[in-house]
Formats: sequence, structure tokens, C-alpha cells
Amino acid sequence: MNDIRNIVIIGAGNVGTRLAHAFRDAGCRIVQVAGRRNAAVKALADEMEAAMTLSFEEIVKGQDLYLLALPDDAILEVVPQLGLGHELLVHTSGSMPMDVLAPYAESIGVFYPLQTFSSIRPVNMAEVPVLVEAGRIEHEDALLALGRRLSRVVSVADSTRRQRVHIAAVFASNFSNHMYAIAQKLMAESGFDFELLVPLIRETALKAIEMGPGAAQTGPAKRNDLKIIEKHLAMLGNEPEWQQIYALLSKSIDNQNSDK
Amino acid sequence: MNDIRNIVIIGAGNVGTRLAHAFRDAGCRIVQVAGRRNAAVKALADEMEAAMTLSFEEIVKGQDLYLLALPDDAILEVVPQLGLGHELLVHTSGSMPMDVLAPYAESIGVFYPLQTFSSIRPVNMAEVPVLVEAGRIEHEDALLALGRRLSRVVSVADSTRRQRVHIAAVFASNFSNHMYAIAQKLMAESGFDFELLVPLIRETALKAIEMGPGAAQTGPAKRNDLKIIEKHLAMLGNEPEWQQIYALLSKSIDNQNSDK
Repeated sequence: MNDIRNIVIIGAGNVGTRLAHAFRDAGCRIVQVAGRRNAAVKALADEMEAAMTLSFEEIVKGQDLYLLALPDDAILEVVPQLGLGHELLVHTSGSMPMDVLAPYAESIGVFYPLQTFSSIRPVNMAEVPVLVEAGRIEHEDALLALGRRLSRVVSVADSTRRQRVHIAAVFASNFSNHMYAIAQKLMAESGFDFELLVPLIRETALKAIEMGPGAAQTGPAKRNDLKIIEKHLAMLGNEPEWQQIYALLSKSIDNQNSDK
Repeated sequence: MNDIRNIVIIGAGNVGTRLAHAFRDAGCRIVQVAGRRNAAVKALADEMEAAMTLSFEEIVKGQDLYLLALPDDAILEVVPQLGLGHELLVHTSGSMPMDVLAPYAESIGVFYPLQTFSSIRPVNMAEVPVLVEAGRIEHEDALLALGRRLSRVVSVADSTRRQRVHIAAVFASNFSNHMYAIAQKLMAESGFDFELLVPLIRETALKAIEMGPGAAQTGPAKRNDLKIIEKHLAMLGNEPEWQQIYALLSKSIDNQNSDK
């Protein structure tokens, strides 16, 4: 297979938009943008100087790559409408096996960027790891080559390993963010602003990145300081959900210590 | 009370060392360093050009401030040995009430820096919030003034509010770090390095700081995507502790959504 140059983007949300920009900046041509929401599809198609369609049956055939940047449920709805033959069709999901695409296209793969995307924050794509998978070795090579034009970190991962990485990402991103959210509510109850925690949150992340999270850990659970842990649990008496989280995570930190 | 200029540091661990440097850089004089571990006490005393003692009965009397930078349990052991009268004695603990000092000194207070300190990473103290408390208003004013010489963010907080902030800090720092630790192990099981998660961890922290953690949240629990959540729980079947954490935090994220 030749280099991937001409790309159809299916889905104009955060992932589709960020990847379309990155592909174009890497020298690819976005031929068409397909999606359901007229405003988002039109905005991205205009930016890419690409054709657009709101009807998935009308995507242009014969291009190098068809990239599905859709929520998992929508992938299963949209794929049967595409009518592709030998064209390379990939999804961008961490959790869907590649094989969900198999009934609908001969050439399938996955192009999964390991990052949290939002509409308002630009992301430096060169630092976003990309995990690729393909049904055929020549497509794997083509996706690796495409990935390397965007990012410094590109690896092959089959569906099982990618799903495992996705779970790790849920812990590292969604769950750590939820810890910030609970902390924010605890601060608000004491009349303090979330701002007060910002240096601590920043330092905790940088310290874990530099030292590794095992060596970076501090606090009552790490010291197995049962007096403080019990006092904190008592103070969380009116918030049983946070109390339960506090107890479970303190025990888990202590278990991790004991494993060493 | 006059300005605090002459300070005795009791405890030469991470907190005592970082604060001693910050006080000196702010124009204070470290008169003496007291502690149990000869090497650490000597190192800090040498750096501060201060006297040192390994015997708490031998601290020099009549200075402006005695700062206890000791673990909570050690505070209760050491304080009865100090033999202070009217001198201002403060501890640096998030979780101990100020009043644990009351039986041992007439003038008491708290000087609590809200940060995770480690021996190998320097911290910009100007960005570390400091919470102060004192038994008398003139000492509160003196501690506020001292705090402002180190840091841009200094507030008064009584023991109950400070303890609540300390719980928030456990969530924002110790528990988010534990999420990184579990993620690291999940990555290792898939044959991937922790490095791959670094851009995600960095972006998650910066995004929460910029947008607030509520608006920044993404992922299956936020979307209440039960198909993915159940698949992830099944994949964690061999790690019941992580499975339990995944289930509890996903439910808590969904509850937070429903509250809005």
C-alpha cells in the first residue's frame, strides 16, 4: 500500500477535529468530512477546505483512509451505512475491538490517540502517543507511518492490549480528575477556593512524572497512620460516598506498600 | 508582638528543611536546629549557620518562634520536653488541632504549608499556600506577616477548617497519585511503559486547573457508558481491589453528574 495521503474524516467532534488538523499539518489532504451535526461538520470541512456530507451513504469512495471519530455506539450505527469495499477503515476508540469493523469493510484497523481532548484546549499532537492495529501487515505499516508523521510515540497494540491501556487511562485521567473534583467540594465546604489546591495538584503530577508514582507517594495512608485515617473517616461521616472512597483507597495504598 | 526574626526549627525532615530555607531567604535568622537524627540536623544547621542540638531539653529559650516540623506522633512526644514559657510555639501539621500544644506553652499556633514536599525536588515556596492559626490575635498577625514574607497565598484557618483542607489535599494529591500508580501497573501488564501516560497525566492536571475538574471530566463514567464500564470491570476480574475501585469511582462520577 502507498502512503496515506487522502483522508475522509467521519465525525466532527473533538477527536475528529484534532486529528483532522494534525493530518493536514502533516501534509495529508482531508477530502471530505462526514457527520450528523451540520454546524460542526461544516466548520471542520471549511477549515480543511474539504467537501462535506451529512449522509453517511454519500461519502466519496476510493480514498486512502476512512477515519471514524465517533462514540462507540455511533460506530456500530454508522459503519453499515458506509458501503466501503477495499478502502482502509479505522476507528479511534480505546475500548472497541478492531473486529467490530470486519463485517463492513475488507481493510480494517485502529488509530487510537491516548489523550483527553476538549474543544477549548489545543493539544500538542507530537506528544500524544498513538496505538495502531490493522488486519493486514501492509496496513499496519501504513498506519504506523501515518502516526509517525503526527507523533513522536507510535506503537502497535492489538485490541486486548489497547483495551487494557484504555483502562489505565481511565485511572490516570478520569479517576484522578474525580479526586480533584471531590477535593474541590471539600474545599468549598470549608470556605476555600479550588485555587488553593492548584500548586499541590501541579506538584503531585510533576512529581509522579519525575519520580514515578510509587516513590512519589506521601500522606497518612502511605505512612499507615491509622489515627489520622480514622479521624478523617469520622470527619467524612456526612458524606458516606467520599468516606467509602477514602477508606478503600487508603487500604489500597497500604496494600501496595506491603507488596514491596 | 514584634516581627518574627529569630527562629528555632525543631525537626530536620523535608518540611523543616524547606521552611528553614524559605525563612532564611525571607530575611529571618535560624538560631538553632533541633532533632534526633544527627546527620539531618547537622546538615541543616550547617546550611543555616545555626547551632544544633540532639536533645530537646537544650533548645535555646527566648526566641521569636519555635517551629515543630515533626510527624504528628513525634509532636506529642517532643513538646513536653521543650520547657517553653511565653515563647511562640507552632506546629506544621494539617491534621493536629492547635490545642494539643496548649498544655506545654502559653503562646501557641499553627503554620501549615499546603504542599507535598520531597527531599529531592525543590519547591517554589512563593506558590505554596500557608494556613495559620494562633491562640492570640497578636500571634495570628505575626504568623500572617511571616507567611506573607514567604508566600503569595496566606490565610487564617481554625483547626476544623484546616483538617478539612487536609482531607481535600489527601484526595487531590495522595489519592490522585494512587490512580497514577494503579495505571502504571496496568500499563506494565500490557507491556507498556509508564512514559506513555505522561502526556495524559500532564494534560489532565492542566485541564482541571484551567477548566475546573467538573467541566474537565471525560470518559465512560462521565458518559454513563455502561457497556464500556461493564467490559472494563470484567477485564479487571483478576484484580478485585482495582475492580472495586473502578466500580466505586465510576458510580461516584455518575452521581456527581446527576447532582447537577
